[in-house]
Amino acid sequence: MAIWHEVDKAVKQWLKDARKSIVESLESALDIDTKSNANDLVTNVDKETEQFFVKQIKEHYPHHKIVGEEGFGDKIDDLKGIVWIIDPIDGTMNFVHQKRNFYISIGILEDGIGRVGYLYDVILDELYWASKGKGAFFNEEMISPLEEGNINEAIIGFNPASIHSEQAAQTFIPLLKDVRGARSYGSAAMEFAYVATGRLDAYISLGLSPWDFAGGKIIVEELGGVVTDLQGNPVNMLEKSSILAARPELHKQLCDYLQS
Amino acid sequence: MAIWHEVDKAVKQWLKDARKSIVESLESALDIDTKSNANDLVTNVDKETEQFFVKQIKEHYPHHKIVGEEGFGDKIDDLKGIVWIIDPIDGTMNFVHQKRNFYISIGILEDGIGRVGYLYDVILDELYWASKGKGAFFNEEMISPLEEGNINEAIIGFNPASIHSEQAAQTFIPLLKDVRGARSYGSAAMEFAYVATGRLDAYISLGLSPWDFAGGKIIVEELGGVVTDLQGNPVNMLEKSSILAARPELHKQLCDYLQS
Repeated sequence: MAIWHEVDKAVKQWLKDARKSIVESLESALDIDTKSNANDLVTNVDKETEQFFVKQIKEHYPHHKIVGEEGFGDKIDDLKGIVWIIDPIDGTMNFVHQKRNFYISIGILEDGIGRVGYLYDVILDELYWASKGKGAFFNEEMISPLEEGNINEAIIGFNPASIHSEQAAQTFIPLLKDVRGARSYGSAAMEFAYVATGRLDAYISLGLSPWDFAGGKIIVEELGGVVTDLQGNPVNMLEKSSILAARPELHKQLCDYLQS
Repeated sequence: MAIWHEVDKAVKQWLKDARKSIVESLESALDIDTKSNANDLVTNVDKETEQFFVKQIKEHYPHHKIVGEEGFGDKIDDLKGIVWIIDPIDGTMNFVHQKRNFYISIGILEDGIGRVGYLYDVILDELYWASKGKGAFFNEEMISPLEEGNINEAIIGFNPASIHSEQAAQTFIPLLKDVRGARSYGSAAMEFAYVATGRLDAYISLGLSPWDFAGGKIIVEELGGVVTDLQGNPVNMLEKSSILAARPELHKQLCDYLQS
């Protein structure tokens, strides 16, 4: 068990170090590039931050494996051993356009089981984290387990741009009428952090990559929340997936709703 | 002109005073009630904050008129003289569920012309404000005028719950595909503050009240942004209205888009 205590201490130091570089980088012009499409942005800061984490991990934990959004980690086919899943800047569009509302997201798994997770709001210097079986925390404050919720009083994280087809419209427009409210923050890590703290009751996304949900899943589950794909199936940590993260009971209600 | 300097000093002090009370109130249980429907929330803090402002304004400026969301101001039929338009807690649902992401919004008009506007993020202690002809500011820092924008690179503030009809779906779903991204924060004041600082390029809302947009309109217009209803018509400061607030040029593009 000692390893997780040591890893925790290291990650928290590296997050602070990364914050310093990122905040400094906001003073100068960003080098912005696109990936899969014109709106899939990546900057020099995404790459440099991932490289920083990869270097630290390889130095301190040479036997651990790394999956990073920007590809500086390892190519892996299975989850054996200890695997770090990292998004150096989750919400790059926010980073570029808003210079706030972006997170560093880290989930560390052992033989496929989430052990520790970190969601770090770089600008607000707010850390959401959990260690499996030991609780979840907002900075140094323990977060209370998530209570049950219900659809009619729920605020859900949901990106309006997800309604891109007639079928999606038929599914989500009635749901959006039945919930209390909807929010969209443009960072999966931020929406997971909001679910963990009860600021959102659920988060729905149609397509995320493992680095978008690895850290958040560990934290939300530690609090008794449920994280699956939209059909209620377990999420594969090596593949893209839809995501339904919610309070207990509300997760069931939303799952039934989306299947009906 | 001296009056606006004096008013500005007073408002800033009152905002700090209100912040203190509101932050303290978050330590104890809120008294939550509903208004027009089950999701239209109001709390004792909304009411007490408005009463605080009304008391201060009546004491210092007995000839000024006040329009407040919670109804403690005056009933007015015209905009003659000096009129304060106040939302004591803009984003009450965020206030209740998130304990953050809510604003105090104040716009002060003289004979119908916006003179000074304030959007105050209570938790982050961030003030966005403008004095007509003298510039707009984020805390003490002057905000640069808004540059032109275009649809394909725009991030728009838009609440997915607005897509409540087939017609709305036909209008907004194609738009949501054409923009770079969409965000929804649940506070009109917050979305105006984000437009003012360029974090959002535009904000679209289907139905707002004067207290939701009075302060924000003054600030965005001072920066060269354009604020109209969705048809491009001037907004009536005494009536509910749809809102399209955007960078110049982008406003025109969005208006043409929504009319086509």
